[in-house]
Amino acid sequence: MAEKVLKGIAASDGIAIAKAYMLVDPDLSFEKTTVSDVDAEIKRLHDAFDASKSELQVIKDKAVENLGAEEAEVFEAHITILSDPEMLGQIEGKIKDDKVNAEEALKEVTDTFISMFEAMTDNAYMQERAGDIRDVTKRVLSHLLGVTLPSPALIDSEVIVVAHDLTPSDTAQLDRNFVKGFITDIGGRTSHSAIMSRTLEIPAVVGSETATTDIKEGTTVILDGINGEALIDPTDAEISDYQQKAKDFAAQKAEWEKLKNEATVSKDGKHFELASNIGTPDDMDGVLDAGSEAVGLFRSEFLYMNSAELPDEDTQFEAYKKVVEGMNGKPVIVRTMDIGGDKHLPYLPLPDEMNPFLGYRAIRISLDRDDIFRTQLRALLRASHYGQLRIMFPMIATLDEFRKAKAIFEEEKAKLVADGTPVADDIKLGIMIEIPAAAILADQFAKEVDFFSIGTNDLIQYSFAADRGNEHVSYLYQPYNPSLLRLIKHVIDAAHANGRIAGMCGEVAGDQVAVPLLMGLGLDEFSMSSTSVLKTRSLMKTIDTTEMAKLADRAINECVTNEEVKELVEKNVFGN
Amino acid sequence: MAEKVLKGIAASDGIAIAKAYMLVDPDLSFEKTTVSDVDAEIKRLHDAFDASKSELQVIKDKAVENLGAEEAEVFEAHITILSDPEMLGQIEGKIKDDKVNAEEALKEVTDTFISMFEAMTDNAYMQERAGDIRDVTKRVLSHLLGVTLPSPALIDSEVIVVAHDLTPSDTAQLDRNFVKGFITDIGGRTSHSAIMSRTLEIPAVVGSETATTDIKEGTTVILDGINGEALIDPTDAEISDYQQKAKDFAAQKAEWEKLKNEATVSKDGKHFELASNIGTPDDMDGVLDAGSEAVGLFRSEFLYMNSAELPDEDTQFEAYKKVVEGMNGKPVIVRTMDIGGDKHLPYLPLPDEMNPFLGYRAIRISLDRDDIFRTQLRALLRASHYGQLRIMFPMIATLDEFRKAKAIFEEEKAKLVADGTPVADDIKLGIMIEIPAAAILADQFAKEVDFFSIGTNDLIQYSFAADRGNEHVSYLYQPYNPSLLRLIKHVIDAAHANGRIAGMCGEVAGDQVAVPLLMGLGLDEFSMSSTSVLKTRSLMKTIDTTEMAKLADRAINECVTNEEVKELVEKNVFGN
Repeated sequence: MAEKVLKGIAASDGIAIAKAYMLVDPDLSFEKTTVSDVDAEIKRLHDAFDASKSELQVIKDKAVENLGAEEAEVFEAHITILSDPEMLGQIEGKIKDDKVNAEEALKEVTDTFISMFEAMTDNAYMQERAGDIRDVTKRVLSHLLGVTLPSPALIDSEVIVVAHDLTPSDTAQLDRNFVKGFITDIGGRTSHSAIMSRTLEIPAVVGSETATTDIKEGTTVILDGINGEALIDPTDAEISDYQQKAKDFAAQKAEWEKLKNEATVSKDGKHFELASNIGTPDDMDGVLDAGSEAVGLFRSEFLYMNSAELPDEDTQFEAYKKVVEGMNGKPVIVRTMDIGGDKHLPYLPLPDEMNPFLGYRAIRISLDRDDIFRTQLRALLRASHYGQLRIMFPMIATLDEFRKAKAIFEEEKAKLVADGTPVADDIKLGIMIEIPAAAILADQFAKEVDFFSIGTNDLIQYSFAADRGNEHVSYLYQPYNPSLLRLIKHVIDAAHANGRIAGMCGEVAGDQVAVPLLMGLGLDEFSMSSTSVLKTRSLMKTIDTTEMAKLADRAINECVTNEEVKELVEKNVFGN
Repeated sequence: MAEKVLKGIAASDGIAIAKAYMLVDPDLSFEKTTVSDVDAEIKRLHDAFDASKSELQVIKDKAVENLGAEEAEVFEAHITILSDPEMLGQIEGKIKDDKVNAEEALKEVTDTFISMFEAMTDNAYMQERAGDIRDVTKRVLSHLLGVTLPSPALIDSEVIVVAHDLTPSDTAQLDRNFVKGFITDIGGRTSHSAIMSRTLEIPAVVGSETATTDIKEGTTVILDGINGEALIDPTDAEISDYQQKAKDFAAQKAEWEKLKNEATVSKDGKHFELASNIGTPDDMDGVLDAGSEAVGLFRSEFLYMNSAELPDEDTQFEAYKKVVEGMNGKPVIVRTMDIGGDKHLPYLPLPDEMNPFLGYRAIRISLDRDDIFRTQLRALLRASHYGQLRIMFPMIATLDEFRKAKAIFEEEKAKLVADGTPVADDIKLGIMIEIPAAAILADQFAKEVDFFSIGTNDLIQYSFAADRGNEHVSYLYQPYNPSLLRLIKHVIDAAHANGRIAGMCGEVAGDQVAVPLLMGLGLDEFSMSSTSVLKTRSLMKTIDTTEMAKLADRAINECVTNEEVKELVEKNVFGN
């Protein structure tokens, strides 16, 4: 038997067996002491700075090689900070004047810098610099104290990464060739780390609560991303058992592969559109590999997040054109910038908010900052000439907002047409349905909006008033709750009554329990991670939509809880 | 003409004319300097400590006299900190060792204490101590620098308070006899300061954006809480004009007073229940003065917030009993503890959350910490013997949650009955409808829940995904949006189909545009600040419910925006 079996949330399919790599900060605490030999102390400081710089240079080179120049920039920024004579001078001064040890002098000086930068609350760039100084301080401290900081960019053998949580900058440093999977203490199925694991196609378990305390560096771990489990220090029998399971999973994936060029058709011959969610043009390989029939969601904010400044019209145009051309006439839905909430741009300071998920974000920013919005719309309009591009507005709550966005779109279109720039004349304008108020009024929206795409992650979050990243209320992530199904049904019916298309681009669109119900409700388009497309196509072929319509009706009118609906589907569709 | 007319949000009715009292921190910045005469510097420090202590003693005595011993406790805590020899000793040490000025030494030492306390993130009590030290540091600094800190507790002439925002601890220090009104830079109609102003029955304007920069200490200000305006340095003509308006307003209030003992009946003879929202048993005077027919919302969390520890069963029992007896057989709806979000208890540490309004709060805490919940339910059960007490659970999202809460209630009831404690056997159990998922499933809830009370503040916040305290999205506070009206109609219809009562206890229940529509939709009970009761009764007497049913129908099915509904009502009901 394994030493322990950890339970968590299955975030990304697949099985991995490898040694644990602890992405956990070591103890960096120290005592303030008085030093007698000031020169020796200053030499210790210089040595630690030098060692940190060399180490960062190695990490940076490795990051450039494995991950690209962009991901490596942060390390260059750290080296620059270490090379700043001002900061080093101040620390030396403190050692000399106050006769304190280098650790204390370092801490006092960098704390001052950090407070200074953090106090500039209206300047996100400076606040980010505060984070850099904090990182650099940690590194120098680690050298002063003779402990080792984990450096994920230096991983060069197969490992399973164990972390409290993975931030976007952590995941940017992970090399897919060596990182075979990861397990975290916190997070849910829709947390950043979970979504990332599906994009990277590596198995992952999140929300295990105790991974970082239960697992030790170098211990062998079996990570079961299918069932959301991790076996710590497994026996040989367990290892061979899971090696077989991994093979079975690979075989099943190979079966799914065969559906790559097939249409998505239910058992009773009804066609559905299976589409991919993407973040950047680089994700197009995955879309084509999966045989997706459309790009159902291009999260354009990644163009903004992967940039050091607001991306200009031409840069955006090239990115949209590449995707539109890549799809070769098939539909591409681009969602306009969805910044705010938990997504920030270093160059676009946002207000400090008590509840950012209920704040200034997405279309609310675009309508307020229409300079940014117009640039994006112009780029989209120009790209529309090269294929079938559709535009979708995120976080629409009221018809007023849609009307304002559409008016700005029409103005920019008229300008481009007047300039003789070729633009498609049939660009469909849609909205995300992710705010309850818009879902409830979908019948009125459907008279003016060309298509809907239901964003279940946010729609669930707002409908149940439960932050999807907050583990204390994770029990309220209820994708099968009849209340949510009613909203979805209303949106689909409203779309159809007005000859519109209703799609879905949240996690639920690829969920094996939800898909049959959604087919029964008549959802037209299902958009998901490319990695889920073939699995879903395989499932959909086995489903009879007439039966499912009846089942969905029962789910909505007879069931009263999430669990009841889940059981109903599992019993009637999967025979469990 | 006045120097300037400031526009803001009308938060509380009425007109006040008085001099401005700036509740704004003075500049407390200083330079770090080297001192040669250490003894003189230490004497400066002692003098500032002594002056601070004397000042706090005066403030404390005044607070005890005007506001009560409880509100004055914070000042006693500050005096205790100043009397701590450890902290004073460390500051003296720094002046001696580092030869720095007292300001710098004070700052460095208190910063260390503050960081230490704040680092205890799982201990809200210690975090609150950090706030105390910060307050004390400010006071000592002000004496060192020779500037004056505002001390609202010392106000002893009639003023209009001008502040960036008013925190609960600020408002606790305000003496109603002298504070004739207030105006703030930030906040909306449902922010803490706005609700407080209505409870205190003083005119208030919030969200003016620039009050603290436009108004100077001692300037005469006319505060028009009816229209949400402030006239800075008005002319004599303007003053006499507004004195007349204030008289007219008083006359209108006197008219409303005559309705105190009348029933609440529409023009066509339909009866409605007009009820009061209260926070503590002390608010009962207002309830009786207003001639309310019920307490529609007893926010029991104030029992917890006004206490230094979890209130025990007997303390709670006495408070509930007092209110129930005070209503003399009329209904009293007690909402169980609604902590979390923006409401904290010093002795109950809550997790740090990115979006507390979407987090661990209200019934979510009660179900998790059923020890606290059971104590409250036992106190309520015991109080039920003395009148007509109803129990309401806040933030219910799913039927599972209601069933769990009800099961715990039944267990505690059975125990009390077994012990021979007298409890009413017909206690109605209801829920707040403030989460969209519950509103949508109201027909299923109505089969098991005895009554609904729609909490519009939160329901709007979640339905539109817009934090009601965030000025950047305040345009999404849309109480007349057809989307919201549909939810409300569904809840009322679901209640009536099952023989249940539907009430409302949010701001909207006393809103002059919404009330006619809600009467048309058949809402049974309207609960609001006691100060709004008579005004609403007066309005309701003029309304024909059959006509309003037709108007509500048009609002829901023909209008598509908040503005359209508002215009429809204003035109058809008020002839504007």
